[in-house]
Amino acid sequence: MTHGSTSRARVSAHPTAGASGAAMPMEETIPVELGIRSHSIHVGSGTLGTLGERLKAVGAGPRLAVVTTTTVGRLYADAVRAGLEAAGFEPELIEIPDGEEHKTLATLAGIYDRLIAARLDRGATLVALGGGVVGDLGGFAAATFLRGIALVHVPTTLVAQVDASVGGKTAVNHPAGKNLIGAFHQPRLVLADVDVLGTLPQREFVAGLAEVIKYGATLDRDLFEYLEGALDRVLTRDAATMVHVVASCCRLKAAVVGADEREREYRAVLNFGHTVGHAIEAVTGYGRYLHGEAVAIGIVCATRISAARRYCDRATAMRVRQLIERAGLPSEVPVDLQAEAIARAIAVDKKMRKGAVRFVCLGGLGGTRFDWLTGTEIVGSLRE
Amino acid sequence: MTHGSTSRARVSAHPTAGASGAAMPMEETIPVELGIRSHSIHVGSGTLGTLGERLKAVGAGPRLAVVTTTTVGRLYADAVRAGLEAAGFEPELIEIPDGEEHKTLATLAGIYDRLIAARLDRGATLVALGGGVVGDLGGFAAATFLRGIALVHVPTTLVAQVDASVGGKTAVNHPAGKNLIGAFHQPRLVLADVDVLGTLPQREFVAGLAEVIKYGATLDRDLFEYLEGALDRVLTRDAATMVHVVASCCRLKAAVVGADEREREYRAVLNFGHTVGHAIEAVTGYGRYLHGEAVAIGIVCATRISAARRYCDRATAMRVRQLIERAGLPSEVPVDLQAEAIARAIAVDKKMRKGAVRFVCLGGLGGTRFDWLTGTEIVGSLRE
Repeated sequence: MTHGSTSRARVSAHPTAGASGAAMPMEETIPVELGIRSHSIHVGSGTLGTLGERLKAVGAGPRLAVVTTTTVGRLYADAVRAGLEAAGFEPELIEIPDGEEHKTLATLAGIYDRLIAARLDRGATLVALGGGVVGDLGGFAAATFLRGIALVHVPTTLVAQVDASVGGKTAVNHPAGKNLIGAFHQPRLVLADVDVLGTLPQREFVAGLAEVIKYGATLDRDLFEYLEGALDRVLTRDAATMVHVVASCCRLKAAVVGADEREREYRAVLNFGHTVGHAIEAVTGYGRYLHGEAVAIGIVCATRISAARRYCDRATAMRVRQLIERAGLPSEVPVDLQAEAIARAIAVDKKMRKGAVRFVCLGGLGGTRFDWLTGTEIVGSLRE
Repeated sequence: MTHGSTSRARVSAHPTAGASGAAMPMEETIPVELGIRSHSIHVGSGTLGTLGERLKAVGAGPRLAVVTTTTVGRLYADAVRAGLEAAGFEPELIEIPDGEEHKTLATLAGIYDRLIAARLDRGATLVALGGGVVGDLGGFAAATFLRGIALVHVPTTLVAQVDASVGGKTAVNHPAGKNLIGAFHQPRLVLADVDVLGTLPQREFVAGLAEVIKYGATLDRDLFEYLEGALDRVLTRDAATMVHVVASCCRLKAAVVGADEREREYRAVLNFGHTVGHAIEAVTGYGRYLHGEAVAIGIVCATRISAARRYCDRATAMRVRQLIERAGLPSEVPVDLQAEAIARAIAVDKKMRKGAVRFVCLGGLGGTRFDWLTGTEIVGSLRE
């Protein structure tokens, strides 16, 4: 199953690397077309304070819970709460501990307790204010509390803005593997303010770039080349540049999700780099690498496999690897991780069928193709 | 919002009370029309052994887990497993403890552990073999494991055959209330063999009749009158009579669910008797009444409220109460339960909005109408 290169207009939708940021719009709205589950993603700069108005615009009832982490809460909860109260909402703040290791059934049970104690009803809304953990766990709580209440994502990390808050996947980890429990639950609204990326630790920001590079490499050659040229402005988190980058990624993901919401087939292109990435996270107990860092290593492995199978040429694989490394991301499986352990972790991958996984390969820059590979075949290309 | 009496053909679809059972078909298939989630309910006698063939017919993959309880497992697991293996399936048996008190997140976590240990993949099927607890908990596990795998209901109690296995609701209890956590997840197939009702304790069988009476009273006057006439054959669990009764109930519920799958409006008619019923279960810690018994009390309360508000006449309310009592079901809120505690339990009802609940009243025999009532208004009619 080859999806080939993406067919794009010859004139790039992306500004050239040298273009002035001032010419770019500071807010972009991306429609996600999913029938009755359609909604909009608003990517902008300085828009966090508008959450209340936007909730009103989508008809949210007065009762809502804001799920966030201790760290994000300290930075943004007061501002968010004040804005919501000014707009007539009665937000209940629910803080969970920071870190992927808390994306568990136990933390979820605590969120349920708080939602019940707050007497939220079926007309209530859950706002997930934070990174991927808050989005996944808060999203799963919204999907399953009273068999589903409204969800709004306010992603505060780069990985959440370009990935976790788009597409409706929600999840909880299991000791045996990441995201093994979950549901599809589309948000009513996504509000991504790139200004909040300013408080992200550099390591977390850079980790998010792995997903950004993934979108360019697999779906949009022009975006990839834009990143190659504009990487310095990306790394300094220039607002206009980030609005453009985040909006581009959301637009690409929204198109994929619109074509295949429940990941029956094509949506799996988004898993590029993730089969090995997830396995590395599992083997290292989710504590050593950030998700994006593990995905970066997975992307380099996937391009190596793609080049070995001649789905892309070696020069393309090298360009992907170089951009990963220039961004400050890891590109190699560390020597202390055993291939065998990684193969075992791949074997519990939820996309595994009949002992093989539908592996996403790079089919030239801006394109993908699928291949059924066993865990052993994959780990055979883990290292150079 | 009045739905009035159901409009039915003058000639009854139901045999008269004196009719011979032999003339009735011993298997009925009810289509549930829900677009891509459409499936069939097969109600028959002596059909349990056909599960393997029917799974093949709907394209189930070879890997499957059978979730059941200790008691049901002892009675039917061997037969089911043998039939499945003969048809080429590799069933993994997962037993959970009996009883509503085990419909918890903790039991759910144990099911996840077993599904993961069995390495079920996305192409796998979860068969829920048992009563409402297995259907709800197994169904929720299927809805959320790997973000959703195929589900097949093989209901073994009357309440599960006529209610829990139809409509796609899955749930877990929370200490604060029943079914507060859950998801909608339609089965691929429902196989209801009325012969397995033969091993049900009398109390459990009778509890199921509360739901049966509910369908007749609210949706099908002819079914109600059929039950009045055929109650003796129902109580002896005559196979042909039970195939007819169970199939009639499934047909009624399937029609309601087909009109309003996600309970946005009309589907709530199925909650007749359940607002008070759920509250009684919660106040008594889920240990004193079976679900159907609590619903029976709730039905009598709801008819009393309906008569007081002149939505139905007192004679109709009396007929409903008499059929409940003739079936051997409780009809009164016990004196030791305080109205205040029941009102508090109603206040956490997941259908509560702005302090009131959309209460289902009887609008004449075979009809319903909705009314917004507060917990205090409801408990004002708890007793004569």
